[in-house]
Amino acid sequence: MATADPVAAQIEAALATFKDDNLASLTSDINTGWTLQSGYLVFFMQAGFAMLCAGSVRAKNAKNIILLNILDACFGCCAWYLTGWAFAYGDPTNQCSANSWDEATCAANGGPFPGLSASQAFIGNRNFVMSNMDRTTYYLWFFQFTFAATGATIVSGAVAERCRFESYMLYELMIVLFVYPVVAHWVWSPFGWLSAWRTVDTASKQSYVLFAGSGVYDFAGDAAVHMVGGLASLAGAWVLGPRIGRFDAAGNPVDMPGHNASLTLLGVFLLWFGWYGFNPGSTLAITYGIDSFSKVAAAVAVNTTIGAASGCLATLFITMAYQYFTLGVVVWDLIIAGNGALAGLVAITGPCAFVQSWAAFIIGAIGGLVYFIASKVNLHLLKVDDPLDAIAVHAGAGIWGLIAGGAFAAPGMVNNVYGPLPGTEDGQRKYGFIMGGDGSALAAALVCIIVVGAWTLGIMTPFFMLLKKVGLFRVSPEVEAQGLDVSHHGGSAYPHEEGKNGKALESFGLTADMVDRKIAEALEKYKKENGAAAV
Amino acid sequence: MATADPVAAQIEAALATFKDDNLASLTSDINTGWTLQSGYLVFFMQAGFAMLCAGSVRAKNAKNIILLNILDACFGCCAWYLTGWAFAYGDPTNQCSANSWDEATCAANGGPFPGLSASQAFIGNRNFVMSNMDRTTYYLWFFQFTFAATGATIVSGAVAERCRFESYMLYELMIVLFVYPVVAHWVWSPFGWLSAWRTVDTASKQSYVLFAGSGVYDFAGDAAVHMVGGLASLAGAWVLGPRIGRFDAAGNPVDMPGHNASLTLLGVFLLWFGWYGFNPGSTLAITYGIDSFSKVAAAVAVNTTIGAASGCLATLFITMAYQYFTLGVVVWDLIIAGNGALAGLVAITGPCAFVQSWAAFIIGAIGGLVYFIASKVNLHLLKVDDPLDAIAVHAGAGIWGLIAGGAFAAPGMVNNVYGPLPGTEDGQRKYGFIMGGDGSALAAALVCIIVVGAWTLGIMTPFFMLLKKVGLFRVSPEVEAQGLDVSHHGGSAYPHEEGKNGKALESFGLTADMVDRKIAEALEKYKKENGAAAV
Amino acid sequence: MATADPVAAQIEAALATFKDDNLASLTSDINTGWTLQSGYLVFFMQAGFAMLCAGSVRAKNAKNIILLNILDACFGCCAWYLTGWAFAYGDPTNQCSANSWDEATCAANGGPFPGLSASQAFIGNRNFVMSNMDRTTYYLWFFQFTFAATGATIVSGAVAERCRFESYMLYELMIVLFVYPVVAHWVWSPFGWLSAWRTVDTASKQSYVLFAGSGVYDFAGDAAVHMVGGLASLAGAWVLGPRIGRFDAAGNPVDMPGHNASLTLLGVFLLWFGWYGFNPGSTLAITYGIDSFSKVAAAVAVNTTIGAASGCLATLFITMAYQYFTLGVVVWDLIIAGNGALAGLVAITGPCAFVQSWAAFIIGAIGGLVYFIASKVNLHLLKVDDPLDAIAVHAGAGIWGLIAGGAFAAPGMVNNVYGPLPGTEDGQRKYGFIMGGDGSALAAALVCIIVVGAWTLGIMTPFFMLLKKVGLFRVSPEVEAQGLDVSHHGGSAYPHEEGKNGKALESFGLTADMVDRKIAEALEKYKKENGAAAV
Repeated sequence: MATADPVAAQIEAALATFKDDNLASLTSDINTGWTLQSGYLVFFMQAGFAMLCAGSVRAKNAKNIILLNILDACFGCCAWYLTGWAFAYGDPTNQCSANSWDEATCAANGGPFPGLSASQAFIGNRNFVMSNMDRTTYYLWFFQFTFAATGATIVSGAVAERCRFESYMLYELMIVLFVYPVVAHWVWSPFGWLSAWRTVDTASKQSYVLFAGSGVYDFAGDAAVHMVGGLASLAGAWVLGPRIGRFDAAGNPVDMPGHNASLTLLGVFLLWFGWYGFNPGSTLAITYGIDSFSKVAAAVAVNTTIGAASGCLATLFITMAYQYFTLGVVVWDLIIAGNGALAGLVAITGPCAFVQSWAAFIIGAIGGLVYFIASKVNLHLLKVDDPLDAIAVHAGAGIWGLIAGGAFAAPGMVNNVYGPLPGTEDGQRKYGFIMGGDGSALAAALVCIIVVGAWTLGIMTPFFMLLKKVGLFRVSPEVEAQGLDVSHHGGSAYPHEEGKNGKALESFGLTADMVDRKIAEALEKYKKENGAAAV
Repeated sequence: MATADPVAAQIEAALATFKDDNLASLTSDINTGWTLQSGYLVFFMQAGFAMLCAGSVRAKNAKNIILLNILDACFGCCAWYLTGWAFAYGDPTNQCSANSWDEATCAANGGPFPGLSASQAFIGNRNFVMSNMDRTTYYLWFFQFTFAATGATIVSGAVAERCRFESYMLYELMIVLFVYPVVAHWVWSPFGWLSAWRTVDTASKQSYVLFAGSGVYDFAGDAAVHMVGGLASLAGAWVLGPRIGRFDAAGNPVDMPGHNASLTLLGVFLLWFGWYGFNPGSTLAITYGIDSFSKVAAAVAVNTTIGAASGCLATLFITMAYQYFTLGVVVWDLIIAGNGALAGLVAITGPCAFVQSWAAFIIGAIGGLVYFIASKVNLHLLKVDDPLDAIAVHAGAGIWGLIAGGAFAAPGMVNNVYGPLPGTEDGQRKYGFIMGGDGSALAAALVCIIVVGAWTLGIMTPFFMLLKKVGLFRVSPEVEAQGLDVSHHGGSAYPHEEGKNGKALESFGLTADMVDRKIAEALEKYKKENGAAAV
Repeated sequence: MATADPVAAQIEAALATFKDDNLASLTSDINTGWTLQSGYLVFFMQAGFAMLCAGSVRAKNAKNIILLNILDACFGCCAWYLTGWAFAYGDPTNQCSANSWDEATCAANGGPFPGLSASQAFIGNRNFVMSNMDRTTYYLWFFQFTFAATGATIVSGAVAERCRFESYMLYELMIVLFVYPVVAHWVWSPFGWLSAWRTVDTASKQSYVLFAGSGVYDFAGDAAVHMVGGLASLAGAWVLGPRIGRFDAAGNPVDMPGHNASLTLLGVFLLWFGWYGFNPGSTLAITYGIDSFSKVAAAVAVNTTIGAASGCLATLFITMAYQYFTLGVVVWDLIIAGNGALAGLVAITGPCAFVQSWAAFIIGAIGGLVYFIASKVNLHLLKVDDPLDAIAVHAGAGIWGLIAGGAFAAPGMVNNVYGPLPGTEDGQRKYGFIMGGDGSALAAALVCIIVVGAWTLGIMTPFFMLLKKVGLFRVSPEVEAQGLDVSHHGGSAYPHEEGKNGKALESFGLTADMVDRKIAEALEKYKKENGAAAV
């Protein structure tokens, strides 16, 4: 609206001032509210995971596993405060990210395109213990904390029923203080070397700073949250070894069902609900962006639903077919279907903002299949005992989700999220090869999978081995048999129900057969001692 | 502000452009965020219904019913994707509804008052598998999906403990593919023949296009969700027949309590919470409208709370009085009070946006009474076995809610929701006869009840009969006795607690009396065989 | 931008009109949406408290306590409708509070600084049964209702397992009709004598109208909600006396664990989640205020998380250390840790908006310590039986929270919440003495503690004594032994699980030892009667 008309110019200037004075803070407030409320939902996933875990273990360890879950939130908060946020997002200009809408703050911090250094590409180094943090970033601190806690809590399921409480506290600090934040930095910080949010050099406007010219497309956290949590679970469960009795003498797995499927499925529902904070909330804004992030959030909500639904149905039917062809019976397995819904959710978490709804059906369904196969491989081949199938759900479907992002990312949707690619004529970002793109996005995803895998396993495996070496990692066989609740947590979760602790047939309710046998034995003995009467 | 002053005109034009450029998208984003978040809460009702159902059945069927509930969400999503949305809202100009705020899109689609055809009044026909959907409608797709899933899940309670899993999957597809969407179209689409959102003919501006000059006043879904779900429940439970043992030889009902009242009531609380998405979220907008939809949403939240509270209290005291006068004991029945809260919520769902708060007390309380009576009629007269009282709660209180909307709708509030009635001088919409209006709104409600009732029962009853005919509908008596979990879902929800499966006294814990009797019998036999010693 | 330029003046006027026409209603709508959604979360705390209570009592009283909890919401709604809101917020100009953003309504009601009268400082007197309420205040009615219901529900835990249902209904009315609203008025109404929101006299602009020149700094309700609920609990539990068997003959407490720790901890998670409505939602606005309430809300969310985490960890380690030094065993007590999280949440509730994040760690941790000590004092010294430790959590940590607000309130943050202090040069509000302020804020807190304590105990203790006197307060010993569910609520919550009712070893499952003894006795008798055969 540039014009020679002095009145028009005056109006234009007044409107610009008006906009700055009134709309900038308004939109910032709205986006803060959206992100806070999304964070509440992500926090709620702690409740979901606690119930999922509690139902999936035997009653004698229910209190133990719930305590692990509540401590994920509590130690997670402390660790995030100390170094977590700083390593992940403690950037020189954390107001200048691609997803910042506060241009004024950004400019005051040195403009939107700060120079990049190698160390900044690897790890953040500011705002330890929330020092020197602008109050405008507090809501992000909270939101990102809920993600860190979610990632950390995954492991509690894999090490359930045999892990020492003390070592779990150490693990929790390890992962939130250091392991998770570094991966989050790589993938999500505008400085991270794998990040598609990475801002490019102003002077050269070269896109080379984006890894593979693309960066990894991980919208809501398949790499940082699910792969890190899932692979730490693998390291933990492998080093820890299986629960006593999980494999028979021949090495075949023996069923060890949890004590309360209602709680387990309550957990699935709570997690699904919380995922609506996790995925659509990862927009970090509802009113912002090229084509409006509200549309991105809506598409994400749709895709999240579809991913969960198709993951659940695929797993249900695959398991039914497998059982039918191997055992000849039709079984519709609730627990596995619930895990299938979670696998679908995990699979869609990374690509949810970039893929069409038809693709979401495919991604979720394959997520369910990947979970099914990974679970079998885990149990039968690797002989790893994972009471909640956390490895198969989170690492398995998480890796698939990253691949799916590289394969199905749609050209328009990628640009709506990340904005135009600087330094190019048409601004088109890389997109999925199935959608007609080249393989750059997939290449970035594969490198991400390898590097994040090596990072997580490479740190967590020695860490758990060290814990094992010093005797801190696993409870004694006596304690394991007795259950952790009675041994370490002041009594059973269900103190009035002996039966729930699995010793029903030993010390409590006798069957009629057992009583008959007892009587017969007693009479036999009586007869021997007293002789039969002469008839 | 029309003026001859050229500067003023220039300012006015600049402000109009500014508003279009900045505020139109902002308000659209805000409303999208509000509706998405409301949809999350509605989705959460799936968790509530799952827990309500799980607690209300015997432990041996807990996994089965939770699986039905999770599949309501999963199959519901697929069906909504295939045809559900298309039949319900696949309108030529789904941006031009009365509750659209996007005038520009609306105009681009041919103006706000498209011509009406008979087929458009009956059913939508666009956007199958989300094809050609504008991204601005994705959030509505998600929100309306959660409604369809909620309606569908109601039936799971009524057919619990005896319905074959395979036939439930077919039912689920039937209702979300076709039965529910058509009713939703009638009542909520701007093209639906019963809809009060129906837009009128531009040329004539006649209000005759509104049914009975009013359209049915069903704000959040007593017709589409609760009547459809409740009457499909009636058809299902009636065709299926009662559970074995529910009626004795004389045809009198025998109590068959659920296994876990804590879970049942957890479900009630979760549902009540989710209802705050269902009712206030049905504004589809928080900043929009004549007198601001934020005020409508606030009034709806208040009325929803009042409806639940009065429904709960009325049912609690009615049941207590009934028991006191029939049996002479004072019993404060928790399960019935919980259902009373749900009945109050159902009753207020339709009229929540149009009625004064004092009326909400009356509507909720009568909702509780209607539930109480309908439940007795259902069980004692119709001899229909509905394990969750879903018929009485949803169909009973839902019908009452529609009547209440026609009776109590307040003149100002109706106009604040639907806007002025076109083609009239004062723009006053029809309102409730108790509030001094004529009977038009009530007439529309009664016709709606009859037609929706005939539609639902007329389709679902033959459908269920067909399922029964081909032997797909009900499990065998052996399976029913054993419980569906052990038979079809891979084992009990509580594998370590035999007692929960109701066979405690048969095979597990023996009482002292039983042991004494066993011993006595053994000794009697011993004596016979060995003879008593000569004394 | 005052100027002699006529065009500039014209633009300015047009913009002012534009802002009034478009932005005033928009921000009001946004804030209404935020507050409604926060209120939903606060309502959800009813579900949390119900599960917390249910798990913490013995199975035989599960239905009873859940019914108390659902009636807290239902009777609470009725009482809030009748007089609750009127006494708390029925002010002459409830649109003119410091936290109102609607200046126009405010001016229309007589300007922002109405004269104060003594009665207005004590109690509100308008809007009984929602009469003459502006629709713009409905959302506040709803939000504040959820607070009243939360405060009232605290008592259900303290009187659990022995209180007559009828007297609990009377208590519920008492507290929501009168006791709670008056305290809410004192602390939160712009007319309340203790309120820091109190507006000052326009003419004199003297700050003396703020109590101690400060008013009490209670952001989200340590005084009105937690102290009132916690001290009413103390009165109730003390008058009621301990459960049978809670103390042995020597007066030493006997453990009486709840029946389901999984439910108890589910309750803790749900409450923590709901607290994100309680604390950040108490801004009542997301876009408003000097430095933007969105930043206040974000800081509150962070502090709330930190308070919960540090409260939980502190309590866990204190309890472990205490047990280790007294009993020599390491016990990580889940239930106490859960209560510690709640104590941390209670402690941070009052000061959450005014304190730095490092202070939140201290406040939460000391909250956990205060809970631990108060619980011991309560049980061992006062010999009060509080099945849920509601007194120690809510009154104990609530009092500490008020003190902490007076001690740690940071100067800038106080002003960001309450705005500049009128009648002073620099507008600086009083702040905490630890932060370098004088003792005014602490003095106001201490007076608040004393007065609210005297008010609550002074009314509730005689009230409960009267109930006891007329024989309405406590069930008979027979009913208590049998459990309230079978006696008064139509049967057990778990009708198929005799074991849960604590009579397992008496009438149900016999141990092998018991059967052996039975057989031996029978044989002894047989031998006597029949004689041993001659060998």
